[in-house]
Amino acid sequence: MHDLSGVLNYIDAERDNALQRLFDLLRIESISTDPAYNAQCTAAADWLVDDLNSIGFNATRRDTDGHPMVVAHTPGGTGPHLLFYGHYDVQPVDPLELWHSDPFAPALEDTALGKVIRGRGAADDKGQLMTFIEACRAFKVVSGELPANITILLEGEEESGSPSLVPFLKANADELRCDLALVCDTGMWNDKTPAICTMLRGMLGEEITITAADKDLHSGMFGGPAQNPIRVLTKLLAGLHDDSGRVTLPGFYDDVPPLPEQIAQQWQSLEFDASEFLGAVDLSVVAGEQNHTALEQIWSRPTCEFNGITGGYTGDGFKTVLPSKANCKISFRLVGQQDPVKIRQSFRQYIESNLPEDCSVEFADHGASPATVMSIDNPAFERAREELGREWETEAVYTGCGGSIPVVGYFHELLGMESLMIGFGLDDDQIHSPNEKYNLSSFVKGTRSWARVLASL
Amino acid sequence: MHDLSGVLNYIDAERDNALQRLFDLLRIESISTDPAYNAQCTAAADWLVDDLNSIGFNATRRDTDGHPMVVAHTPGGTGPHLLFYGHYDVQPVDPLELWHSDPFAPALEDTALGKVIRGRGAADDKGQLMTFIEACRAFKVVSGELPANITILLEGEEESGSPSLVPFLKANADELRCDLALVCDTGMWNDKTPAICTMLRGMLGEEITITAADKDLHSGMFGGPAQNPIRVLTKLLAGLHDDSGRVTLPGFYDDVPPLPEQIAQQWQSLEFDASEFLGAVDLSVVAGEQNHTALEQIWSRPTCEFNGITGGYTGDGFKTVLPSKANCKISFRLVGQQDPVKIRQSFRQYIESNLPEDCSVEFADHGASPATVMSIDNPAFERAREELGREWETEAVYTGCGGSIPVVGYFHELLGMESLMIGFGLDDDQIHSPNEKYNLSSFVKGTRSWARVLASL
Repeated sequence: MHDLSGVLNYIDAERDNALQRLFDLLRIESISTDPAYNAQCTAAADWLVDDLNSIGFNATRRDTDGHPMVVAHTPGGTGPHLLFYGHYDVQPVDPLELWHSDPFAPALEDTALGKVIRGRGAADDKGQLMTFIEACRAFKVVSGELPANITILLEGEEESGSPSLVPFLKANADELRCDLALVCDTGMWNDKTPAICTMLRGMLGEEITITAADKDLHSGMFGGPAQNPIRVLTKLLAGLHDDSGRVTLPGFYDDVPPLPEQIAQQWQSLEFDASEFLGAVDLSVVAGEQNHTALEQIWSRPTCEFNGITGGYTGDGFKTVLPSKANCKISFRLVGQQDPVKIRQSFRQYIESNLPEDCSVEFADHGASPATVMSIDNPAFERAREELGREWETEAVYTGCGGSIPVVGYFHELLGMESLMIGFGLDDDQIHSPNEKYNLSSFVKGTRSWARVLASL
Repeated sequence: MHDLSGVLNYIDAERDNALQRLFDLLRIESISTDPAYNAQCTAAADWLVDDLNSIGFNATRRDTDGHPMVVAHTPGGTGPHLLFYGHYDVQPVDPLELWHSDPFAPALEDTALGKVIRGRGAADDKGQLMTFIEACRAFKVVSGELPANITILLEGEEESGSPSLVPFLKANADELRCDLALVCDTGMWNDKTPAICTMLRGMLGEEITITAADKDLHSGMFGGPAQNPIRVLTKLLAGLHDDSGRVTLPGFYDDVPPLPEQIAQQWQSLEFDASEFLGAVDLSVVAGEQNHTALEQIWSRPTCEFNGITGGYTGDGFKTVLPSKANCKISFRLVGQQDPVKIRQSFRQYIESNLPEDCSVEFADHGASPATVMSIDNPAFERAREELGREWETEAVYTGCGGSIPVVGYFHELLGMESLMIGFGLDDDQIHSPNEKYNLSSFVKGTRSWARVLASL
């Protein structure tokens, strides 16, 4: 057996050194989307390779067409084979004038809500990935070995669309395929309650362009007998939801499972404050599907949303044009077993079969990914949940996520792995914004949490 | 009595001189919308003042905050008092490369369809206004006097929104108020059939902006429980028409008169080819209000059209934004006695009362003018129609116009005058486009038509 209490004590004693290591990593300006920072991205990868090698991993920098991957293996590891995923790249820092300190001069700050690590990447994702590496370091020092066979994959393009990820996973599938993935890019429910995210909504992106006349017309000359594509488009879009907020496409809800009782009860107990959630953006009433709470809607219900619409004259003033074309970008968030391909077909069929004479439609495909729903029957989930509760002294909850974390889908699709999504970020971490921070408690107790979870798996 | 046949003979004999005068006027680059041509606009006004004085009018240039007006009176005129209106300014000429000749070097050209006068302003409106002045000239030369008491008002801002027109009409109402206005800015039904336009649709311009959240949201995070203003907007817009194409606003059709029997019969006899009309813009089916022909819809039925719509992300690619705002520009074409003020109220009430919770709406007012429907009971209309038929050897028709000619509304509203709208333009005159032309037959027979009409009034 591993000396878990020895490991936890070491983590506490090593705290300041661990912080210095994180600060070293945070000082590297690894902004992946801006080619001006290419060398810094490579430097961050090299720093991680060196650090992982220093604690006994067999780590290498693996170059791609974009920024490099870091891959590390435990030599001769035993126990379950786990793949840890994180990313070392960060978001740009503009607008720089809104930062209260240099985004790449990390520091510990006292705030009204406790000590925080301030700097770009503190929470997303350098701070989070270092919680895992520091837990591994503690095991190596205290026990001489890790409690599992661990592979680490660190990406440098997460904030810029991950163009190299799928090719890399495909090319290295045998090397990277494990029993379970650990993904540290999510958050806690609140600063006291740890969480495991088990549901990510999928997404289907569609764009339609309706064309009527072959040129813009004058509404005085043609207004009436000529089809107006804005009018056609608005009528088609208005038909996509019924009065109860449900999507009207035939079969849309066929593969939407009811919420498992255990999950429903947990979510109920979270006492999610919809008024506060909506109040933050100046809304007050839960819209959307009737008879579903806000939390249910965001985490477990599918949606059809219009993300952009344009047609005709949209500048200042007024023009009485009857436009030739009108366009809308539409996204469907998907849950359960909803099949993006079937839903795309159903959507296109709805549009085509309701299109009036003299109108044509063009569709553009903006991607499709199914929802990811982890099977919490896997005992690793309950074990991890218990250990998180032990560390934070508050029972950990299974949560959903309204958005998607593409890598989790790729692990499932390409490597046949489920992902245990554990993270210690908080809603007020200001990731992607000025003054990003990571609570010191997230960092320290996050590290201790990983130690407990690793020991339990 | 006037020697009408002498006048008509003089017009024929004087043709080449009349053309040279028109060419002189066409050579003046009086583009009103571009300040670089201010001096040329004044030069055109001065040219007209001189020409009118040379044939015995008492003509003056009347400066305004914009381009000058030209006002001319017949000294001691007798008979009915008529106000002739035309405009001496022209549209810009770009794209210049599409012109086959210099737009300001007018010339007579032989074409497959006969001789045409080519140049900017040939039809709109210098050629048309000169038909009236040449008719007056012929009367002065042949009879020594005009057959009516004539006031002429020529504007230099018609192509740039007429900012000075209303103030000028108000300030000079007593001087300009006549028994009837003659407006020469319309067209023939076709190159054989003269027309008097008796109906102009009015217009109401509205713009609505729906706001939900106070910032753009992420559709993964908020999709579902947060109101989407594009969805709200499309639903509101889709409710403005029923399945038969009628506008659903309460009371919208209350003040829409049935088409008078005489007019309905005449329009029937025009054998308007809707397929050809729509085919020219790649449409084939008469849309809009059921049970109304295309011609009825354009000339005598009200519409509600969406002229521009925008909201959310409309650039290339895709963003899963839930926008804060969505906007639409909406125009209503009005007929009969429809009251723009009542319809604006009814529209705004519809929007406000159907707006879901958490959404607000802002309205912008883009102008309102009622329809203009001439009373053809005024005997001048039938007399003019008979004279036009005599000149063109084809019975003249009463037509409508789907657009609006604001000056006709101002004459009605500010001076209490009806307008007899007679013009000799044709659909293929390319006004506002490169290679504008005016048929030589429009110019000569137009001048002869005015002589006949003036003698008959």
